[in-house]
Amino acid sequence: MRTALGVDFGGTSVKVGLVDERGNLLGRAQAATGERMPIQEWLGIVERCAREVIGNRRRPLGMGVGVPGFTDFEKGLIVNLTNVRGWTGVPLADILRRRFKMPVWVDNDANAAALGECVFGAGREYRQAVMVTLGTGVGGGIVIDGKVFRGAHSMAGEIGHVCIDMNGPATPEGRGGLETFVGNRRIAERAARAIREGRRTSLTRMVRGDLSAITPKIIAGAAHKGDRLCLEIFDFVADCLAAAFASITYVLQPEVFIVAGGVAKSGSILFRPLRRHMKERLSPFFARRIAVKRARFGENAGVIGCAALAFRYSGARRTAR
Amino acid sequence: MRTALGVDFGGTSVKVGLVDERGNLLGRAQAATGERMPIQEWLGIVERCAREVIGNRRRPLGMGVGVPGFTDFEKGLIVNLTNVRGWTGVPLADILRRRFKMPVWVDNDANAAALGECVFGAGREYRQAVMVTLGTGVGGGIVIDGKVFRGAHSMAGEIGHVCIDMNGPATPEGRGGLETFVGNRRIAERAARAIREGRRTSLTRMVRGDLSAITPKIIAGAAHKGDRLCLEIFDFVADCLAAAFASITYVLQPEVFIVAGGVAKSGSILFRPLRRHMKERLSPFFARRIAVKRARFGENAGVIGCAALAFRYSGARRTAR
Repeated sequence: MRTALGVDFGGTSVKVGLVDERGNLLGRAQAATGERMPIQEWLGIVERCAREVIGNRRRPLGMGVGVPGFTDFEKGLIVNLTNVRGWTGVPLADILRRRFKMPVWVDNDANAAALGECVFGAGREYRQAVMVTLGTGVGGGIVIDGKVFRGAHSMAGEIGHVCIDMNGPATPEGRGGLETFVGNRRIAERAARAIREGRRTSLTRMVRGDLSAITPKIIAGAAHKGDRLCLEIFDFVADCLAAAFASITYVLQPEVFIVAGGVAKSGSILFRPLRRHMKERLSPFFARRIAVKRARFGENAGVIGCAALAFRYSGARRTAR
Repeated sequence: MRTALGVDFGGTSVKVGLVDERGNLLGRAQAATGERMPIQEWLGIVERCAREVIGNRRRPLGMGVGVPGFTDFEKGLIVNLTNVRGWTGVPLADILRRRFKMPVWVDNDANAAALGECVFGAGREYRQAVMVTLGTGVGGGIVIDGKVFRGAHSMAGEIGHVCIDMNGPATPEGRGGLETFVGNRRIAERAARAIREGRRTSLTRMVRGDLSAITPKIIAGAAHKGDRLCLEIFDFVADCLAAAFASITYVLQPEVFIVAGGVAKSGSILFRPLRRHMKERLSPFFARRIAVKRARFGENAGVIGCAALAFRYSGARRTAR
């Protein structure tokens, strides 16, 4: 069976995985890269990790790399990384291609993860999918006809900045974006504010009165035990997601939304109200043609998605280009 | 020069135009169709109109039809018309093809208009465009890589239902959709409400105290003369559009938004605040890569857009299919 390498370029570490064409992770290696590592040194680390995961196996057909920031996919170029310095304007695909003597694709990490879920995971029955990853920020990726949709300048799919309240909180990206309501810190702050305003909840005891210790995970735990405030907070998060998903559905009409990231692990307390609110926010014509699923891959979403880039685009090269 | 027929299927009339491949309207005929005309009779009217506009000219390469509702473009089928009864499930392309012995394409009218503007009008320099038509409702169409983007089930591009306020007015389509703020009636109601609440404005005199006579056109006239309330209302309409356009930009990253319809004729009192609010609602990375233009075609947008369907997809047939 054919294999591909997935390289998940993190801010302070790099993960390398060997993935077969059914999406199975055959091997995985990880190494710390520090904050401002020179490119040559970084390449050495990727090479060591790649050797380790390939072992005695057959040569992979190519390598996909996911980076946290803007890329020019066609040119294989890192345009700018949001939180990592020293990589602006780096022609990473060319550099890796010369070093590893194999085809290389470089993409935004959220795009890679979305493609991975769509090719191998929760979206594998679909050709039109939107993936949203919930964390400190809210990332997104769009797959149309089985390919990553990039828009006019390779920046499409920034679901976290879709406006759900035009008078909402102002950020450098606009006003009332989804992320300003359902980013991890915003969820925790919402609980803390309610407690300060006198709401009774089992949370207070769970964090021993230290409201700064509240996290979405703790809120989810309390919600699963029936805590009223925590259930309300998850209902609100679900409704915010539903508002953004409804807008995206009216614009793109995908087949499925795939939800990933920490908060997505909360299960039914998120997905049940999410599906209900989406029905309220869509006309029946649209509502009955849209599915919502939890992402299948957890911490390996990155490397599997990067490998999916290599499978999907190497195939495309042979057939369509 | 090659020509195509554009057939704009209205609720109570039909417009037929002959368009050359530069987008020039060579001839145009229109006829009333009444509310529940049998299909055979309707076909007869279209045929008479087509004969009239073709005259002694060369045979057109094909016919595009735009209808007010849902279509299955691939099958050339009318799925359902929003305000016209008796046309559900009609295989219109097949029927017309047999009768006229030429290739026929049937699409939603907003999609056709968007394609027309993108191929021949305000969007002709662009490959990725979103068109919005402001009227009683707010229609939309998306062009990607020079083709109409239809989504998974041919219903994409419903820009009027993009949510800009998750707690906004409820409709059968959801809550706080763009249309609930900038539909013609909503704009007029906003002015009437302000007057009832005691705002002074030249509008009151212009409609001789009959607040039900207020229209966006009258508001625009007063705004151009410097009426404060009316300028505020246009600023609000512009900001609502900007909120929806920002969301769409983060999702799709098109190159241009094209604004059509009555309110778009207001010119600078709409477009100046619209561009300003879009800058406020987008990060610089996105803001500097997006244009906003007024549509070029007015009442002929329909027939020109329908003809564009025939030009664009007949070309596609030869090369890609």
